[in-house]
Amino acid sequence: MKRDRLDDATFEVAHALADAARVATLKHFRTPLSVDSKTSDFDPVTIADREAEAAMRAILAQRRPDDGILGEEGDAITGTSGLTWVLDPIDGTRGFISGTPTWGVLIALRDAGGPFLGIIDQPYIAERFVGGSGFARWTRGDQSRDLSVSAVTDLEQATILTTFPEVGTTAQGDAFRRVASRCRLTRYGMDCYAYALLAAGHVDLVIEAGLQPYDIAAPIAVVQGAGGIVTDWQGGPAHDGGTCIAAATPALHARALDLLNG
Amino acid sequence: MKRDRLDDATFEVAHALADAARVATLKHFRTPLSVDSKTSDFDPVTIADREAEAAMRAILAQRRPDDGILGEEGDAITGTSGLTWVLDPIDGTRGFISGTPTWGVLIALRDAGGPFLGIIDQPYIAERFVGGSGFARWTRGDQSRDLSVSAVTDLEQATILTTFPEVGTTAQGDAFRRVASRCRLTRYGMDCYAYALLAAGHVDLVIEAGLQPYDIAAPIAVVQGAGGIVTDWQGGPAHDGGTCIAAATPALHARALDLLNG
Repeated sequence: MKRDRLDDATFEVAHALADAARVATLKHFRTPLSVDSKTSDFDPVTIADREAEAAMRAILAQRRPDDGILGEEGDAITGTSGLTWVLDPIDGTRGFISGTPTWGVLIALRDAGGPFLGIIDQPYIAERFVGGSGFARWTRGDQSRDLSVSAVTDLEQATILTTFPEVGTTAQGDAFRRVASRCRLTRYGMDCYAYALLAAGHVDLVIEAGLQPYDIAAPIAVVQGAGGIVTDWQGGPAHDGGTCIAAATPALHARALDLLNG
Repeated sequence: MKRDRLDDATFEVAHALADAARVATLKHFRTPLSVDSKTSDFDPVTIADREAEAAMRAILAQRRPDDGILGEEGDAITGTSGLTWVLDPIDGTRGFISGTPTWGVLIALRDAGGPFLGIIDQPYIAERFVGGSGFARWTRGDQSRDLSVSAVTDLEQATILTTFPEVGTTAQGDAFRRVASRCRLTRYGMDCYAYALLAAGHVDLVIEAGLQPYDIAAPIAVVQGAGGIVTDWQGGPAHDGGTCIAAATPALHARALDLLNG
Protein backbone atom coordinates (compact mmCIF):
# COMPACT_ATOMS: atom_id res chain seq x y z
CA MET A 1 0.00 0.00 0.00
CA LYS A 2 2.70 2.43 1.07
CA ARG A 3 4.80 1.46 -1.85
CA ASP A 4 2.03 2.38 -4.28
CA ARG A 5 2.39 5.97 -3.21
CA LEU A 6 5.93 6.06 -4.52
CA ASP A 7 4.91 7.13 -7.99
CA ASP A 8 7.39 8.78 -10.30
CA ALA A 9 6.09 12.27 -9.54
CA THR A 10 6.73 11.81 -5.79
CA PHE A 11 10.26 10.57 -6.44
CA GLU A 12 10.85 13.51 -8.72
CA VAL A 13 9.75 15.96 -6.02
CA ALA A 14 12.00 14.28 -3.44
CA HIS A 15 15.01 14.58 -5.74
CA ALA A 16 14.11 18.18 -6.60
CA LEU A 17 14.15 18.99 -2.88
CA ALA A 18 17.56 17.37 -2.47
CA ASP A 19 18.90 19.16 -5.54
CA ALA A 20 17.74 22.54 -4.23
CA ALA A 21 19.15 21.90 -0.77
CA ARG A 22 22.45 20.81 -2.28
CA VAL A 23 22.87 24.13 -4.06
CA ALA A 24 21.78 26.17 -1.04
CA THR A 25 24.07 24.39 1.42
CA LEU A 26 27.17 24.20 -0.80
CA LYS A 27 26.98 27.96 -1.40
CA HIS A 28 27.86 28.42 2.28
CA PHE A 29 29.97 25.35 3.04
CA ARG A 30 33.53 26.20 4.07
CA THR A 31 32.94 29.92 3.83
CA PRO A 32 32.97 32.25 6.85
CA LEU A 33 29.54 32.04 8.52
CA SER A 34 27.73 34.01 11.14
CA VAL A 35 26.76 31.29 13.54
CA ASP A 36 23.77 32.07 15.76
CA SER A 37 22.85 30.12 18.83
CA LYS A 38 19.31 28.88 19.17
CA THR A 39 19.99 27.93 22.75
CA SER A 40 22.75 28.67 25.21
CA ASP A 41 24.04 25.14 24.68
CA PHE A 42 25.74 25.94 21.36
CA ASP A 43 23.25 24.73 18.80
CA PRO A 44 24.46 26.49 15.69
CA VAL A 45 22.05 27.61 13.03
CA THR A 46 23.55 28.84 9.85
CA ILE A 47 22.31 30.86 6.95
CA ALA A 48 22.71 27.72 4.88
CA ASP A 49 20.29 25.85 7.13
CA ARG A 50 17.58 28.45 6.70
CA GLU A 51 18.10 28.99 2.98
CA ALA A 52 18.07 25.27 2.22
CA GLU A 53 14.82 24.69 4.10
CA ALA A 54 13.23 27.76 2.48
CA ALA A 55 14.20 26.44 -0.95
CA MET A 56 12.63 23.05 -0.18
CA ARG A 57 9.46 24.62 1.25
CA ALA A 58 9.05 26.76 -1.88
CA ILE A 59 9.12 23.62 -4.05
CA LEU A 60 6.60 21.83 -1.83
CA ALA A 61 4.27 24.85 -1.77
CA GLN A 62 4.13 24.73 -5.54
CA ARG A 63 4.18 21.00 -6.24
CA ARG A 64 2.71 19.38 -3.13
CA PRO A 65 0.36 21.95 -1.58
CA ASP A 66 -1.80 19.29 0.11
CA ASP A 67 1.07 17.63 2.02
CA GLY A 68 2.21 18.60 5.48
CA ILE A 69 5.75 19.78 6.32
CA LEU A 70 7.80 19.12 9.46
CA GLY A 71 11.10 20.96 9.21
CA GLU A 72 13.92 21.83 11.57
CA GLU A 73 13.75 25.54 10.90
CA GLY A 74 10.24 26.68 10.00
CA ASP A 75 6.76 26.13 11.46
CA ALA A 76 5.07 22.78 11.00
CA ILE A 77 2.37 22.69 8.33
CA THR A 78 -0.51 20.25 8.70
CA GLY A 79 -1.58 19.06 5.27
CA THR A 80 -4.77 17.42 4.09
CA SER A 81 -3.27 14.46 2.21
CA GLY A 82 -2.19 12.46 5.25
CA LEU A 83 1.43 12.72 4.05
CA THR A 84 4.11 14.83 5.67
CA TRP A 85 7.54 15.83 4.32
CA VAL A 86 10.11 15.72 7.09
CA LEU A 87 13.05 18.02 6.35
CA ASP A 88 16.41 18.53 8.03
CA PRO A 89 18.28 20.93 5.74
CA ILE A 90 21.60 20.30 7.49
CA ASP A 91 21.88 17.32 9.80
CA GLY A 92 25.19 17.74 11.58
CA THR A 93 25.42 21.53 11.76
CA ARG A 94 28.45 21.26 14.03
CA GLY A 95 30.17 19.11 11.43
CA PHE A 96 29.14 21.58 8.73
CA ILE A 97 30.72 24.57 10.47
CA SER A 98 33.85 22.48 11.13
CA GLY A 99 34.20 21.75 7.41
CA THR A 100 33.77 17.96 7.78
CA PRO A 101 32.16 16.12 4.84
CA THR A 102 29.78 14.00 6.94
CA TRP A 103 26.80 16.32 7.45
CA GLY A 104 23.83 15.77 5.18
CA VAL A 105 20.48 16.93 3.89
CA LEU A 106 17.68 14.70 5.20
CA ILE A 107 14.36 14.43 3.38
CA ALA A 108 11.61 11.94 4.22
CA LEU A 109 7.99 11.37 3.36
CA ARG A 110 5.84 9.84 6.08
CA ASP A 111 2.27 8.90 6.85
CA ALA A 112 0.74 7.86 10.16
CA GLY A 113 2.74 4.62 10.02
CA GLY A 114 6.10 6.31 9.70
CA PRO A 115 8.55 7.28 6.94
CA PHE A 116 8.32 5.29 3.69
CA LEU A 117 10.70 7.32 1.52
CA GLY A 118 14.00 8.83 2.63
CA ILE A 119 17.00 10.64 1.19
CA ILE A 120 20.38 11.18 2.85
CA ASP A 121 22.28 13.58 0.59
CA GLN A 122 25.93 14.58 1.12
CA PRO A 123 26.31 17.59 -1.16
CA TYR A 124 30.10 18.07 -0.93
CA ILE A 125 30.91 14.50 -1.93
CA ALA A 126 27.87 14.57 -4.23
CA GLU A 127 26.54 11.30 -2.87
CA ARG A 128 22.84 10.52 -2.48
CA PHE A 129 21.38 7.57 -0.54
CA VAL A 130 17.70 6.98 -1.32
CA GLY A 131 15.56 4.31 0.28
CA GLY A 132 12.02 3.20 0.97
CA SER A 133 9.84 0.13 1.17
CA GLY A 134 11.83 -2.65 -0.43
CA PHE A 135 14.58 -0.67 -2.12
CA ALA A 136 17.67 1.46 -1.40
CA ARG A 137 20.04 3.01 -3.86
CA TRP A 138 23.25 5.05 -3.90
CA THR A 139 24.06 7.56 -6.64
CA ARG A 140 27.04 9.82 -7.27
CA GLY A 141 27.05 11.64 -10.57
CA ASP A 142 26.43 9.00 -13.19
CA GLN A 143 27.41 6.14 -10.84
CA SER A 144 24.66 4.17 -9.14
CA ARG A 145 24.22 0.93 -7.18
CA ASP A 146 21.80 -0.86 -4.89
CA LEU A 147 22.40 -0.64 -1.17
CA SER A 148 22.34 -3.65 1.09
CA VAL A 149 23.17 -3.98 4.77
CA SER A 150 25.81 -6.43 6.01
CA ALA A 151 25.01 -9.94 7.24
CA VAL A 152 26.74 -9.44 10.60
CA THR A 153 24.86 -11.03 13.52
CA ASP A 154 27.48 -11.01 16.31
CA LEU A 155 28.55 -7.94 18.26
CA GLU A 156 32.15 -9.22 18.22
CA GLN A 157 32.14 -8.83 14.41
CA ALA A 158 30.32 -5.51 14.37
CA THR A 159 31.50 -1.96 13.72
CA ILE A 160 29.40 0.50 15.72
CA LEU A 161 28.99 4.23 15.09
CA THR A 162 27.61 7.14 17.05
CA THR A 163 28.20 10.87 16.65
CA PHE A 164 29.03 12.10 20.16
CA PRO A 165 31.02 9.93 22.64
CA GLU A 166 28.74 11.09 25.46
CA VAL A 167 25.73 9.86 23.40
CA GLY A 168 23.08 11.46 25.63
CA THR A 169 22.46 11.33 29.38
CA THR A 170 24.97 9.61 31.67
CA ALA A 171 22.78 6.50 31.75
CA GLN A 172 22.47 6.53 27.95
CA GLY A 173 26.24 6.87 27.60
CA ASP A 174 26.72 3.91 29.94
CA ALA A 175 24.21 1.85 27.96
CA PHE A 176 25.97 2.67 24.69
CA ARG A 177 29.32 1.63 26.14
CA ARG A 178 27.88 -1.72 27.26
CA VAL A 179 27.23 -2.42 23.59
CA ALA A 180 30.32 -0.73 22.12
CA SER A 181 32.72 -2.51 24.47
CA ARG A 182 31.61 -5.80 22.90
CA CYS A 183 32.01 -4.57 19.32
CA ARG A 184 35.03 -5.00 17.10
CA LEU A 185 35.34 -1.30 16.31
CA THR A 186 33.72 1.93 17.50
CA ARG A 187 33.81 5.16 15.49
CA TYR A 188 32.49 8.65 16.17
CA GLY A 189 31.59 11.90 14.49
CA MET A 190 29.82 10.80 11.31
CA ASP A 191 26.41 12.50 11.82
CA CYS A 192 23.72 11.17 9.44
CA TYR A 193 26.42 9.71 7.21
CA ALA A 194 26.61 6.87 9.76
CA TYR A 195 23.19 5.60 8.64
CA ALA A 196 24.25 5.79 4.99
CA LEU A 197 27.31 3.66 5.80
CA LEU A 198 25.04 1.17 7.57
CA ALA A 199 22.69 0.97 4.58
CA ALA A 200 25.72 0.43 2.33
CA GLY A 201 26.96 -2.48 4.45
CA HIS A 202 30.21 -0.83 5.63
CA VAL A 203 29.22 -0.63 9.29
CA ASP A 204 26.75 -2.73 11.26
CA LEU A 205 25.27 -0.71 14.10
CA VAL A 206 24.35 2.92 14.74
CA ILE A 207 23.13 3.87 18.21
CA GLU A 208 22.13 7.40 19.17
CA ALA A 209 19.99 9.35 21.61
CA GLY A 210 18.53 12.83 21.91
CA LEU A 211 17.20 12.78 18.36
CA GLN A 212 14.49 14.96 16.87
CA PRO A 213 11.93 13.43 14.48
CA TYR A 214 13.56 15.21 11.51
CA ASP A 215 16.97 13.71 12.45
CA ILE A 216 15.81 10.15 12.02
CA ALA A 217 12.93 9.94 9.52
CA ALA A 218 15.09 9.74 6.37
CA PRO A 219 17.69 7.40 7.95
CA ILE A 220 14.89 5.00 8.94
CA ALA A 221 13.61 4.77 5.36
CA VAL A 222 17.10 4.36 3.87
CA VAL A 223 18.28 1.73 6.38
CA GLN A 224 15.02 -0.25 6.24
CA GLY A 225 15.05 -0.08 2.45
CA ALA A 226 18.54 -1.60 2.48
CA GLY A 227 17.30 -4.48 4.66
CA GLY A 228 18.21 -3.16 8.09
CA ILE A 229 16.13 -2.73 11.21
CA VAL A 230 15.58 0.54 13.10
CA THR A 231 13.80 0.99 16.44
CA ASP A 232 14.06 3.06 19.59
CA TRP A 233 15.85 1.59 22.61
CA GLN A 234 12.63 -0.09 23.73
CA GLY A 235 12.20 -1.86 20.41
CA GLY A 236 9.35 0.40 19.30
CA PRO A 237 9.09 2.86 16.39
CA ALA A 238 11.94 5.41 16.27
CA HIS A 239 10.36 7.96 13.97
CA ASP A 240 9.16 10.29 16.70
CA GLY A 241 12.75 10.92 17.83
CA GLY A 242 14.50 10.25 21.13
CA THR A 243 16.63 7.11 21.10
CA CYS A 244 17.53 5.04 18.08
CA ILE A 245 19.22 1.75 17.34
CA ALA A 246 19.78 0.83 13.70
CA ALA A 247 21.20 -2.62 12.94
CA ALA A 248 22.12 -4.66 9.90
CA THR A 249 20.30 -7.82 11.05
CA PRO A 250 17.53 -8.75 13.52
CA ALA A 251 19.97 -10.95 15.51
CA LEU A 252 22.47 -8.11 15.92
CA HIS A 253 19.64 -5.74 16.81
CA ALA A 254 18.34 -8.13 19.49
CA ARG A 255 21.79 -8.59 21.05
CA ALA A 256 22.48 -4.86 21.17
CA LEU A 257 18.99 -4.10 22.52
CA ASP A 258 19.52 -6.58 25.36
CA LEU A 259 22.72 -4.83 26.42
CA LEU A 260 21.22 -1.35 26.08
CA ASN A 261 18.54 -2.37 28.56
CA GLY A 262 20.80 -4.57 30.71
CA MET B 1 67.60 26.68 2.18
CA LYS B 2 64.97 24.01 2.60
CA ARG B 3 62.70 25.81 0.25
CA ASP B 4 65.32 25.67 -2.50
CA ARG B 5 64.98 21.93 -2.52
CA LEU B 6 61.40 22.19 -3.63
CA ASP B 7 62.25 22.22 -7.30
CA ASP B 8 59.61 21.32 -9.87
CA ALA B 9 60.91 17.78 -10.26
CA THR B 10 60.49 17.07 -6.54
CA PHE B 11 56.93 18.42 -6.57
CA GLU B 12 56.19 16.29 -9.58
CA VAL B 13 57.42 13.16 -7.83
CA ALA B 14 55.33 13.95 -4.74
CA HIS B 15 52.21 14.35 -6.84
CA ALA B 16 53.03 11.19 -8.80
CA LEU B 17 53.18 9.28 -5.50
CA ALA B 18 49.81 10.67 -4.42
CA ASP B 19 48.28 9.89 -7.82
CA ALA B 20 49.50 6.29 -7.66
CA ALA B 21 48.28 5.82 -4.09
CA ARG B 22 44.91 7.30 -5.01
CA VAL B 23 44.38 4.66 -7.69
CA ALA B 24 45.62 1.81 -5.49
CA THR B 25 43.46 2.75 -2.48
CA LEU B 26 40.27 3.57 -4.37
CA LYS B 27 40.40 0.19 -6.08
CA HIS B 28 39.72 -1.39 -2.68
CA PHE B 29 37.67 1.29 -0.89
CA ARG B 30 34.17 0.16 0.03
CA THR B 31 34.69 -3.33 -1.35
CA PRO B 32 34.83 -6.48 0.80
CA LEU B 33 38.33 -6.78 2.26
CA SER B 34 40.27 -9.39 4.04
CA VAL B 35 41.42 -7.53 7.10
CA ASP B 36 44.50 -8.92 8.82
CA SER B 37 45.58 -7.99 12.28
CA LYS B 38 49.15 -6.86 12.78
CA THR B 39 48.68 -7.06 16.51
CA SER B 40 46.06 -8.58 18.76
CA ASP B 41 44.75 -5.07 19.42
CA PHE B 42 42.88 -4.84 16.11
CA ASP B 43 45.25 -2.89 13.91
CA PRO B 44 43.85 -3.64 10.48
CA VAL B 45 46.10 -3.84 7.49
CA THR B 46 44.42 -4.02 4.16
CA ILE B 47 45.50 -5.07 0.75
CA ALA B 48 44.98 -1.46 -0.26
CA ASP B 49 47.54 -0.33 2.30
CA ARG B 50 50.21 -2.66 0.95
CA GLU B 51 49.48 -2.05 -2.73
CA ALA B 52 49.49 1.72 -2.31
CA GLU B 53 52.86 1.73 -0.53
CA ALA B 54 54.32 -0.68 -3.08
CA ALA B 55 53.18 1.62 -5.91
CA MET B 56 54.82 4.60 -4.25
CA ARG B 57 58.04 2.72 -3.53
CA ALA B 58 58.26 1.64 -7.17
CA ILE B 59 58.10 5.27 -8.29
CA LEU B 60 60.75 6.33 -5.79
CA ALA B 61 63.05 3.46 -6.76
CA GLN B 62 62.98 4.73 -10.33
CA ARG B 63 62.91 8.49 -9.87
CA ARG B 64 64.58 9.10 -6.50
CA PRO B 65 67.00 6.21 -5.93
CA ASP B 66 69.25 8.27 -3.64
CA ASP B 67 66.53 9.23 -1.17
CA GLY B 68 65.57 7.24 1.91
CA ILE B 69 62.08 5.83 2.56
CA LEU B 70 60.23 5.50 5.84
CA GLY B 71 56.89 3.78 5.25
CA GLU B 72 54.20 2.23 7.40
CA GLU B 73 54.31 -1.11 5.62
CA GLY B 74 57.76 -1.88 4.22
CA ASP B 75 61.30 -1.77 5.58
CA ALA B 76 63.00 1.58 6.07
CA ILE B 77 65.53 2.50 3.39
CA THR B 78 68.46 4.75 4.32
CA GLY B 79 69.34 6.92 1.36
CA THR B 80 72.47 8.87 0.54
CA SER B 81 70.89 12.25 -0.27
CA GLY B 82 70.02 13.22 3.29
CA LEU B 83 66.35 13.29 2.28
CA THR B 84 63.72 10.77 3.32
CA TRP B 85 60.23 10.19 1.93
CA VAL B 86 57.81 9.44 4.74
CA LEU B 87 54.81 7.43 3.52
CA ASP B 88 51.55 6.41 5.15
CA PRO B 89 49.53 4.80 2.35
CA ILE B 90 46.31 4.84 4.39
CA ASP B 91 46.20 6.99 7.49
CA GLY B 92 42.99 6.02 9.26
CA THR B 93 42.74 2.36 8.30
CA ARG B 94 39.83 1.91 10.71
CA GLY B 95 37.98 4.72 8.97
CA PHE B 96 38.84 3.19 5.61
CA ILE B 97 37.34 -0.20 6.46
CA SER B 98 34.27 1.56 7.89
CA GLY B 99 33.72 3.40 4.60
CA THR B 100 34.20 6.89 6.05
CA PRO B 101 35.68 9.54 3.73
CA THR B 102 38.19 10.96 6.22
CA TRP B 103 41.16 8.61 5.84
CA GLY B 104 44.00 9.84 3.69
CA VAL B 105 47.26 9.14 1.92
CA LEU B 106 50.16 10.90 3.68
CA ILE B 107 53.36 11.74 1.84
CA ALA B 108 56.18 13.88 3.22
CA LEU B 109 59.76 14.72 2.38
CA ARG B 110 62.06 15.39 5.30
CA ASP B 111 65.67 16.09 6.12
CA ALA B 112 67.40 16.09 9.51
CA GLY B 113 65.43 19.21 10.46
CA GLY B 114 62.04 17.66 9.83
CA PRO B 115 59.42 17.55 7.05
CA PHE B 116 59.47 20.41 4.55
CA LEU B 117 56.97 19.11 2.01
CA GLY B 118 53.73 17.30 2.78
CA ILE B 119 50.64 15.99 1.05
CA ILE B 120 47.36 14.95 2.66
CA ASP B 121 45.31 13.32 -0.11
CA GLN B 122 41.70 12.18 0.29
CA PRO B 123 41.14 9.99 -2.76
CA TYR B 124 37.39 9.42 -2.49
CA ILE B 125 36.55 13.14 -2.30
CA ALA B 126 39.45 13.79 -4.69
CA GLU B 127 40.89 16.50 -2.48
CA ARG B 128 44.60 17.17 -2.09
CA PHE B 129 46.18 19.40 0.57
CA VAL B 130 49.83 20.22 -0.20
CA GLY B 131 52.09 22.32 1.98
CA GLY B 132 55.65 23.20 2.79
CA SER B 133 57.86 26.09 3.81
CA GLY B 134 55.82 29.21 3.20
CA PHE B 135 52.95 27.80 1.16
CA ALA B 136 49.93 25.52 1.38
CA ARG B 137 47.39 24.76 -1.30
CA TRP B 138 44.15 22.80 -1.77
CA THR B 139 43.19 21.24 -5.08
CA ARG B 140 40.16 19.24 -6.20
CA GLY B 141 39.95 18.48 -9.88
CA ASP B 142 40.45 21.82 -11.62
CA GLN B 143 39.62 23.82 -8.48
CA SER B 144 42.48 25.20 -6.39
CA ARG B 145 43.04 27.71 -3.59
CA ASP B 146 45.62 28.75 -1.02
CA LEU B 147 45.22 27.41 2.49
CA SER B 148 45.44 29.60 5.55
CA VAL B 149 44.82 28.80 9.20
CA SER B 150 42.28 30.75 11.26
CA ALA B 151 43.17 33.74 13.44
CA VAL B 152 41.63 32.23 16.58
CA THR B 153 43.69 32.89 19.73
CA ASP B 154 41.23 32.01 22.53
CA LEU B 155 40.24 28.48 23.52
CA GLU B 156 36.67 29.68 24.07
CA GLN B 157 36.46 30.47 20.34
CA ALA B 158 38.23 27.32 19.19
CA THR B 159 36.99 24.13 17.57
CA ILE B 160 39.18 21.19 18.62
CA LEU B 161 39.54 17.83 16.88
CA THR B 162 40.98 14.48 17.81
CA THR B 163 40.34 11.04 16.34
CA PHE B 164 39.70 8.80 19.35
CA PRO B 165 37.87 10.11 22.47
CA GLU B 166 40.28 8.16 24.69
CA VAL B 167 43.19 10.00 22.93
CA GLY B 168 45.94 7.80 24.41
CA THR B 169 46.78 6.81 28.00
CA THR B 170 44.40 7.75 30.81
CA ALA B 171 46.62 10.70 31.72
CA GLN B 172 46.73 11.81 28.08
CA GLY B 173 42.94 11.57 27.86
CA ASP B 174 42.61 13.69 31.00
CA ALA B 175 45.04 16.26 29.58
CA PHE B 176 43.08 16.43 26.34
CA ARG B 177 39.82 16.98 28.20
CA ARG B 178 41.35 19.85 30.20
CA VAL B 179 41.81 21.63 26.88
CA ALA B 180 38.63 20.44 25.14
CA SER B 181 36.37 21.41 28.05
CA ARG B 182 37.43 25.02 27.46
CA CYS B 183 36.82 24.93 23.73
CA ARG B 184 33.67 25.98 21.91
CA LEU B 185 33.29 22.69 20.08
CA THR B 186 34.95 19.25 20.15
CA ARG B 187 34.71 16.77 17.26
CA TYR B 188 36.04 13.26 16.78
CA GLY B 189 36.81 10.68 14.14
CA MET B 190 38.43 12.70 11.35
CA ASP B 191 41.83 10.94 11.14
CA CYS B 192 44.40 12.94 9.12
CA TYR B 193 41.58 14.98 7.57
CA ALA B 194 41.56 16.92 10.87
CA TYR B 195 44.92 18.50 9.99
CA ALA B 196 43.66 19.41 6.52
CA LEU B 197 40.66 21.17 8.10
CA LEU B 198 43.05 23.03 10.42
CA ALA B 199 45.22 24.14 7.50
CA ALA B 200 42.09 25.32 5.68
CA GLY B 201 41.00 27.44 8.65
CA HIS B 202 37.81 25.50 9.47
CA VAL B 203 39.00 24.20 12.84
CA ASP B 204 41.59 25.64 15.20
CA LEU B 205 43.23 22.88 17.23
CA VAL B 206 44.14 19.22 16.68
CA ILE B 207 45.55 17.29 19.63
CA GLU B 208 46.58 13.62 19.42
CA ALA B 209 48.83 11.06 21.06
CA GLY B 210 50.27 7.66 20.20
CA LEU B 211 51.41 8.79 16.75
CA GLN B 212 53.99 7.16 14.53
CA PRO B 213 56.44 9.36 12.58
CA TYR B 214 54.62 8.56 9.32
CA ASP B 215 51.29 9.68 10.85
CA ILE B 216 52.44 13.21 11.45
CA ALA B 217 55.18 14.19 8.95
CA ALA B 218 52.85 15.31 6.15
CA PRO B 219 50.36 17.04 8.49
CA ILE B 220 53.23 19.05 10.00
CA ALA B 221 54.31 20.36 6.59
CA VAL B 222 50.75 21.19 5.48
CA VAL B 223 49.72 22.92 8.73
CA GLN B 224 52.99 24.88 9.01
CA GLY B 225 52.74 25.85 5.35
CA ALA B 226 49.28 27.28 6.04
CA GLY B 227 50.67 29.38 8.90
CA GLY B 228 49.96 27.07 11.83
CA ILE B 229 52.20 25.73 14.56
CA VAL B 230 52.82 22.05 15.34
CA THR B 231 54.78 20.64 18.29
CA ASP B 232 54.68 17.71 20.68
CA TRP B 233 53.06 18.21 24.10
CA GLN B 234 56.38 19.49 25.48
CA GLY B 235 56.63 22.18 22.82
CA GLY B 236 59.40 20.37 20.92
CA PRO B 237 59.46 18.91 17.42
CA ALA B 238 56.59 16.49 16.70
CA HIS B 239 58.01 14.77 13.64
CA ASP B 240 59.34 11.73 15.48
CA GLY B 241 55.82 10.78 16.56
CA GLY B 242 54.27 10.39 20.00
CA THR B 243 52.18 13.36 21.05
CA CYS B 244 51.13 16.24 18.84
CA ILE B 245 49.42 19.60 19.22
CA ALA B 246 48.67 21.57 16.07
CA ALA B 247 47.23 25.06 16.45
CA ALA B 248 46.16 27.92 14.22
CA THR B 249 48.06 30.59 16.16
CA PRO B 250 50.96 30.77 18.63
CA ALA B 251 48.68 32.25 21.32
CA LEU B 252 46.18 29.40 21.01
CA HIS B 253 49.03 26.90 20.98
CA ALA B 254 50.50 28.37 24.17
CA ARG B 255 47.15 28.31 26.00
CA ALA B 256 46.44 24.72 25.03
CA LEU B 257 49.99 23.62 25.90
CA ASP B 258 49.64 25.14 29.37
CA LEU B 259 46.49 23.12 30.04
CA LEU B 260 47.94 19.90 28.60
CA ASN B 261 50.76 20.17 31.11
CA GLY B 262 48.64 21.61 33.95
